[in-house]
Amino acid sequence: MVQAPSKLITLEEFLELPETEPASEYIDGQIVQKPMPKGKHSKLQVKLVGAINQVVEASQIAEAFTELRCTFAGRSIVPDIAVFTWDRIPVDAAGDIADTFDLAPDWVIEILSPDQNQTQVVKKIFHCLDQGCQLGWLVDPAERCVFIYPSRQHLIFLTEPNDVLVVPEFAQALQLTVGTLFGWLQRQKR
Amino acid sequence: MVQAPSKLITLEEFLELPETEPASEYIDGQIVQKPMPKGKHSKLQVKLVGAINQVVEASQIAEAFTELRCTFAGRSIVPDIAVFTWDRIPVDAAGDIADTFDLAPDWVIEILSPDQNQTQVVKKIFHCLDQGCQLGWLVDPAERCVFIYPSRQHLIFLTEPNDVLVVPEFAQALQLTVGTLFGWLQRQKR
Repeated sequence: MVQAPSKLITLEEFLELPETEPASEYIDGQIVQKPMPKGKHSKLQVKLVGAINQVVEASQIAEAFTELRCTFAGRSIVPDIAVFTWDRIPVDAAGDIADTFDLAPDWVIEILSPDQNQTQVVKKIFHCLDQGCQLGWLVDPAERCVFIYPSRQHLIFLTEPNDVLVVPEFAQALQLTVGTLFGWLQRQKR
Repeated sequence: MVQAPSKLITLEEFLELPETEPASEYIDGQIVQKPMPKGKHSKLQVKLVGAINQVVEASQIAEAFTELRCTFAGRSIVPDIAVFTWDRIPVDAAGDIADTFDLAPDWVIEILSPDQNQTQVVKKIFHCLDQGCQLGWLVDPAERCVFIYPSRQHLIFLTEPNDVLVVPEFAQALQLTVGTLFGWLQRQKR
């Protein structure tokens, strides 16, 4: 994570800046750029968002997005995966999906990158939970485990391949184990 | 954290090896060497163990130790601070404190080092909690916050200077805030 020089800027000033690649986030007056996604991170992000949408999108229950900027409660963050229940997805006057998401996701998923500051990622998840998010996931590909936060005060730590990942109620059709999740990292045999 | 080559050894074989500096731990058949302690880590470790012992040692309630090897439930770990209630501290035939601690601490405190694998540290705390430890602390000097684990399933995340750190019942005489804890890092004025 790259920390900009310590000059504080306002959220409004931050939102005027051009987007960066990887995305930058605005947290406590600081601009923090997300780490460059590596192979394991990308693979899990793509497979997971696909698995979630397979269960919730066609049925119009919810929709999962990758790298979507969410600006709320004084911060502007870009979760690895942000899932919104259907009725909360903002639409513009034409009925299309809006460009600006000024609300907390209902389910936030972060996938740790090597050398990423884990406490800062947890704080990002807690910020979402504080603003009404139902569930947070912190996926650690290196350690093959998932920290699940049903709230700021509760923690479910899953490490066994047969452990079933806890999902929000709206996505309970998704049956996913730790083993399946990290199995996605393996090269498929031809 | 330095990972030895992937050859698995038994706990008994590990305990026969000479001690290293920094200490090595035996976790899931692997030898993992602790990171070289840096300034912030050492300062917090010394001040914190002093503050705890000031409250619990003279009254023979408990005693806090730094870098004490604790071997139990198939692992051999060296917590940054391990606190044992008085009656659980092993003594030898002469009535002196024993050299070997084959039990889980009642309160385990880990202080994150820069670039230390945070998930591995949390797993070490969970191992203690699974074996009867009453409370785990994970202190993050870089982020000036403390993760407190009353159990595997519960998490208290303290970041505000006025937040009072939760302690085990046997040490409730210790009144310590986040601000005081990280204030110890500041150079004292002459």
